[in-house]
Amino acid sequence: MEQMRGKQSIQLENAVYIISHACVTGSKEGEGPLGKKIDCVGKDDMFGQESWELAESAIQQKAALMVLDKAGLSLSKIRYIFAGDLLGQLIATSFGLEEFDVPLFGLYGACSTCGEALALGAMTVSAGYGDYVMAMTSSHYASAEKQFRTPLEYGNQRPLAASWTVTGSGAFILSGKHGRVRISGMTIGKVVDYGIKDALNMGAAMAPAACDTIVQNLKDFERTPEDYDQIITGDLGSVGQKILWDLTMEQGFVIEKNHMDCGMVIYDSEKQDTHAGGSGCGCSAVTLAAYILPLLERGTWKRVLFVPTGALLSTISFNERQSIPGIAHGIVLEHVE
Amino acid sequence: MEQMRGKQSIQLENAVYIISHACVTGSKEGEGPLGKKIDCVGKDDMFGQESWELAESAIQQKAALMVLDKAGLSLSKIRYIFAGDLLGQLIATSFGLEEFDVPLFGLYGACSTCGEALALGAMTVSAGYGDYVMAMTSSHYASAEKQFRTPLEYGNQRPLAASWTVTGSGAFILSGKHGRVRISGMTIGKVVDYGIKDALNMGAAMAPAACDTIVQNLKDFERTPEDYDQIITGDLGSVGQKILWDLTMEQGFVIEKNHMDCGMVIYDSEKQDTHAGGSGCGCSAVTLAAYILPLLERGTWKRVLFVPTGALLSTISFNERQSIPGIAHGIVLEHVE
Repeated sequence: MEQMRGKQSIQLENAVYIISHACVTGSKEGEGPLGKKIDCVGKDDMFGQESWELAESAIQQKAALMVLDKAGLSLSKIRYIFAGDLLGQLIATSFGLEEFDVPLFGLYGACSTCGEALALGAMTVSAGYGDYVMAMTSSHYASAEKQFRTPLEYGNQRPLAASWTVTGSGAFILSGKHGRVRISGMTIGKVVDYGIKDALNMGAAMAPAACDTIVQNLKDFERTPEDYDQIITGDLGSVGQKILWDLTMEQGFVIEKNHMDCGMVIYDSEKQDTHAGGSGCGCSAVTLAAYILPLLERGTWKRVLFVPTGALLSTISFNERQSIPGIAHGIVLEHVE
Repeated sequence: MEQMRGKQSIQLENAVYIISHACVTGSKEGEGPLGKKIDCVGKDDMFGQESWELAESAIQQKAALMVLDKAGLSLSKIRYIFAGDLLGQLIATSFGLEEFDVPLFGLYGACSTCGEALALGAMTVSAGYGDYVMAMTSSHYASAEKQFRTPLEYGNQRPLAASWTVTGSGAFILSGKHGRVRISGMTIGKVVDYGIKDALNMGAAMAPAACDTIVQNLKDFERTPEDYDQIITGDLGSVGQKILWDLTMEQGFVIEKNHMDCGMVIYDSEKQDTHAGGSGCGCSAVTLAAYILPLLERGTWKRVLFVPTGALLSTISFNERQSIPGIAHGIVLEHVE
């Protein structure tokens, strides 16, 4: 059928727009380069809650309420929510959205989940299964450190290849109703495993998946890297970025002139001591809401390939000495007059 | 639009069929009432692997290869896979399917994931985004006990309200190509939280969500319980079943005459000492593949509402004394001549 493009991609027949976006972050993100563009910056990272996990839920809830407010929509207009986070069994999402009384599709693609949620949300709207759907993701530095590495109180040192999990959430409302940014297509990612086992160098684990999805997108849509004003990965960081450039070059595509990584934009890594850059489900979602979409809305960028990247590890698989597979989902975003 | 029914449901305009199904289980499931109907029963529960988690991945891989074989399809024909499991960060799925080189949507809805995967898979096929998609889920008794309660070696005692996580995986291929069972619609579930905090009585935690989805399905499609030959929940067990009957009765619907629970069918709880019944992402998936679909294919049942049920807890939320919210997704399955 016409909507299927190439091996892994979809071109949406019916236009789907991102009609509203909102982001909420912790204080460190507010002090970074995007600080002034973030809709709501918390005074501390607890958001009035007793635990880091509940704080993450509160951030999701706040982002969801803000995106509705900005769109002028009531919650009852949202047909489905597509959402996820990094915590085991998605508890930030379950507890964050449980009061909303809206049907929920829980998603997990590690830090690629923002791409997965936008893809499924857009497919749902384009097919006529819902007039308005919400896509959202979150992460929290402290809940993620506790989940994946060690609780903050241990005071562990961090190698330079490590990234800093973003405390934040981005929420998006998708609809067929006209907006300034259109989701015109998507390339769904495969699990790609190069055998990386260093959980403190996730950029290296995710770069092969990002390369796979970007190259497949270019082939499926018969485009060159220059057909995009920017190719934007989620959270490869400075180490993963160089690997991505090398891997895409090996496939015959030079992307370094118009490649950007959300993890390298959300913090000033030298001043803020974040090493390789930002990461987490919140990293690409917050950067999309605060930085990428406004530039697309204004027409500064006409067409962007947005590729959130995920490292599919757990503490159990890591302790059992398994590798860290990666996955990345690509979303084509276009400026509309 | 025409495909949206009532508050939460979708009626599929273009027919989607389950053209192939396969299930693989551990030895205990093979000794149960469905034993002879299961496609492949392992000799032990390790499937040649070094860890329980890798064993669960091996079960998923085996189920996926069997369902392809039964359909006479090569892996390259599968456009997308929708899959999930119970483990933190979905490692059974990531490692089980990573060699397949097929785009993957990772899903988490606790034990309701089989319903979520079938819903999204059917929506994808009906909208023309793929000719063939695979939906699958898995669980493993030992990896789940280690994840959610205590490793088996501790020899903990189990209260009578506890359920037994099924070691098994069910895989399904959905297509517009004619088959004997059609997915005609679905009702996507909301997070429902009645404040239950007992992680060893998950039936009670999930029953309100099951009630919510079943009642909404009946309202959205303007049906009575008798319009279904069976209303089949995932893994409420004997304790949750009684609560579900009471809750639906309060809403004016009597379902006990044609209600069945997969968790009460997959084991002989008296002989097999499984207490309240089976549970896990594998419970509803294996029962669907081994028992429900064959009866629908033969026409013994004409129309069934299949409602996998999930308890959205993690060890972290449990230890932080949070409640256990539930979610349930409903799939309408119909016999086709």
